[in-house]
Amino acid sequence: MLSKAQISLITSLQHKKFRKQHGLFIVEGLKSVLEFLSSDYRIHSLFATTDARTKMGNLPENIKCIEVSTNEFEKISNLTNPQGVLALVYLPPTDGFSWPEIRQQHSILLDDVQDPGNLGTIIRTAEWFGIEHIVCSNGTVDAFNPKVVQATMGSLARVKIHYTSLPDFVDHAQMPVYGALLSGQSIYDTDFRKAGLIVMGNEGNGISEVLQKKIDHAITIPRVGQAESLNVAVATTVFCSEIARQKFKD
Amino acid sequence: MLSKAQISLITSLQHKKFRKQHGLFIVEGLKSVLEFLSSDYRIHSLFATTDARTKMGNLPENIKCIEVSTNEFEKISNLTNPQGVLALVYLPPTDGFSWPEIRQQHSILLDDVQDPGNLGTIIRTAEWFGIEHIVCSNGTVDAFNPKVVQATMGSLARVKIHYTSLPDFVDHAQMPVYGALLSGQSIYDTDFRKAGLIVMGNEGNGISEVLQKKIDHAITIPRVGQAESLNVAVATTVFCSEIARQKFKD
Repeated sequence: MLSKAQISLITSLQHKKFRKQHGLFIVEGLKSVLEFLSSDYRIHSLFATTDARTKMGNLPENIKCIEVSTNEFEKISNLTNPQGVLALVYLPPTDGFSWPEIRQQHSILLDDVQDPGNLGTIIRTAEWFGIEHIVCSNGTVDAFNPKVVQATMGSLARVKIHYTSLPDFVDHAQMPVYGALLSGQSIYDTDFRKAGLIVMGNEGNGISEVLQKKIDHAITIPRVGQAESLNVAVATTVFCSEIARQKFKD
Repeated sequence: MLSKAQISLITSLQHKKFRKQHGLFIVEGLKSVLEFLSSDYRIHSLFATTDARTKMGNLPENIKCIEVSTNEFEKISNLTNPQGVLALVYLPPTDGFSWPEIRQQHSILLDDVQDPGNLGTIIRTAEWFGIEHIVCSNGTVDAFNPKVVQATMGSLARVKIHYTSLPDFVDHAQMPVYGALLSGQSIYDTDFRKAGLIVMGNEGNGISEVLQKKIDHAITIPRVGQAESLNVAVATTVFCSEIARQKFKD
């Protein structure tokens, strides 16, 4: 049974302001919720229909599941086809950066990416290719927006997402900075075997001027046809794949 | 001024049944409409607000633009932020396949891809990397669905889209068939320098059993992290990029 206060809390978490205020975000769907249950994230509460509860198997001892009716569940679900499982999860602590770790890897920097589907796809794709850190400008869409969480298909539970000033981050990192630009050196002629930062720009405006000045290597994905641009999640995929390819070939 | 009949025709074209019946589909947005105006597609009619009309410059002589008010335009627009330009375009003739052309290239085969955004992104990405033909199973979402048209960002005006039985197509093509599967040879160890067919499966179920039997090379995108799968548009991107990379290196 859901109380009015619970429904009101859950629906408020659609908005970033209330996610910050309560320190919580929503994870929905069987697979995504199970991934968060077995991650480092702390679970605040778990809601499931009787049907969905049986599909979840044994839960960790400290997790209590609040069983709700299908009708009640529809009031809190954001999905077109609700799966009957929704968790409220604590936002991760905003620790400092683990610089020794970051300096040994490739990380992706997102400069004001706006579309939740794009960010979600980037997080999921990054995880596939072994990227552990995504550093977002403060103007990038919130990774804990329910649409982003959904699109990551559980990968948000493992990839570390940071929000910060990208120019400051780049200054502090002292690492090679590669920027995805429409003119530059071909990505296929670029040596990615050393750790570095890959900067991807906003959907319409690309990389901001301030950040462009800090790019050491302007990198282009060579175009064969006449398409004017690539979607930012698609361009990020090409970078992730090429970095992985060079590692496998090493 | 829009007639009731015009509004009713345009809104009916949201549905595949009426697109087939009238032989028409909707293209919306300044950039997309301009790309179709300068393509091989035949334009049935063009609607624009006065503001948007001035942004379009000179039109081909045979194209008459019906000017509509902003209020009227909102009745026919499918976009959250209408740009004031919408064209009705004739569906392309369903010609046979130009086999000599297809046999010299890489084409993408889509086996029941369902999401309009995925298909649109695949068409846009394919064009960037120089893929000219996309062959869809009859169960793949309709490429002339307004959401797909939108997501292609104009690339639909140039990439050729076919709908057919994929097993029959593969039998007739007599070309190497590469299938994107979760286990197989690494894509980074695969030689794509000869022409071939690249098969991508449905979002949830992958490639159908019938078609799997016709695959010569099971190809995998090696996974580094723990993500369970890649989005189909993302996986297609990795194939397009690797094929292009090998061409550039040749």
